[in-house]
Amino acid sequence: MAEKPQVLRETDDAARKLARLVFREQRSAAIGVLEPVSDGFPFVSRALLGFDIDAVPIILASQLATHTQALLADARCSVLAGRSGKGDPLAHARITVQCRAEPIARTDLRHARLRERFLRRHPKAQLYIDFPDFLFFRLNPLRASLNAGFGRAYALTGDDLLISSAAMEAIAAAEHALLAELNSNKDALSYFLGEERSDVTPAWQVTAVDAEGIDLVQGDAFRRADFPREVENPDDVRAMFVKLYR
Amino acid sequence: MAEKPQVLRETDDAARKLARLVFREQRSAAIGVLEPVSDGFPFVSRALLGFDIDAVPIILASQLATHTQALLADARCSVLAGRSGKGDPLAHARITVQCRAEPIARTDLRHARLRERFLRRHPKAQLYIDFPDFLFFRLNPLRASLNAGFGRAYALTGDDLLISSAAMEAIAAAEHALLAELNSNKDALSYFLGEERSDVTPAWQVTAVDAEGIDLVQGDAFRRADFPREVENPDDVRAMFVKLYR
Repeated sequence: MAEKPQVLRETDDAARKLARLVFREQRSAAIGVLEPVSDGFPFVSRALLGFDIDAVPIILASQLATHTQALLADARCSVLAGRSGKGDPLAHARITVQCRAEPIARTDLRHARLRERFLRRHPKAQLYIDFPDFLFFRLNPLRASLNAGFGRAYALTGDDLLISSAAMEAIAAAEHALLAELNSNKDALSYFLGEERSDVTPAWQVTAVDAEGIDLVQGDAFRRADFPREVENPDDVRAMFVKLYR
Repeated sequence: MAEKPQVLRETDDAARKLARLVFREQRSAAIGVLEPVSDGFPFVSRALLGFDIDAVPIILASQLATHTQALLADARCSVLAGRSGKGDPLAHARITVQCRAEPIARTDLRHARLRERFLRRHPKAQLYIDFPDFLFFRLNPLRASLNAGFGRAYALTGDDLLISSAAMEAIAAAEHALLAELNSNKDALSYFLGEERSDVTPAWQVTAVDAEGIDLVQGDAFRRADFPREVENPDDVRAMFVKLYR
């Protein structure tokens, strides 16, 4: 990381939480790679952004695309994702995550999980996700830089963005059932979204569950809602969403 | 450039025109650089996007920022800029431009022009543009890749994006006067915007003039309007906007 003590603030839990939210709630990202045919010239392209159950970002890429060829030759990459909207683009929070890309073969045990998580977040990818030239990468975060607006820059570790839980595999195995239960429980959704129950339309859908919270989508909007505490097993998720919102 | 004959279409004038528009009309971009302190690891960050009179993209960067330190150590960089909006982010046109960055010192004769062009496009940069650690870069385009949506990829040269005109310096010298005349001529603006005259509100402001057209801004929206033909001198610009819209 570049040393820039003059502009970096001390990284606290609020910054870590904001970094996770800003990253997680984006639909697409800019991916920077080193182009092999030009001796490592930077190349930045747009990709849809997904997340595995441990919060590692995932992308789906055609092997015909420059960024795929680059990642297969040199796994170092950088992901920029951030909020946008009215007014100055530099006033909106964004995060740069430097990662090491890991291609996930169809024979990999994690492939089915990545495919389902990605499709729930990006249903239109159904059109090409199974084409033989398409490939998933897990982009394992090494370090990150959060810019929360002018003069509000923070350095983060890769671990600051990740979910580490002994219950990960059990929750992954139970994810289908948990999603069905959550999506039929409007009161639980409104609790997790922190909204008045009347504001929660049926259009909000939970697309993913992990040990720390849930991902939701409504139209073009992605939301992340954290559980009040890390859960220890799938039944703990259930206990949380049937009890805690009362 | 990566060889990807299966996905590249033949580059025609329509693709060149779209590439210029998509690039020129963006307010900010993702800049990918090679981070020196980590042996050239890619780093992507958000920057406001401006353009010099020859259409070379310009950025204003703090010397405390990672991308500035990187560009001063290795001038190779990549700029991703593109449209966004409702629906799938991959359905919206975007362009990757690979560039060689050239720092522009305050003593450089081009500095005042860059400063004024940048400020007209990004008035809020007034707050920090003259801070001693801030620096302009011209990002000279070497080659580009336009992605106009699924299956619509084109390779472009740097020259495809640039404006080459013998009248450049004369137009630059006359730009202040031309801007004042254009911004007071609502009929000319409506002609160049291709809109019914009644649709042109006074909020549209011309921020730049060059040999091929004008840049306009209204609130957060940037527009580019090309002249019907390249102009040969400042009076030719005047002749165009007082006559052609009739």
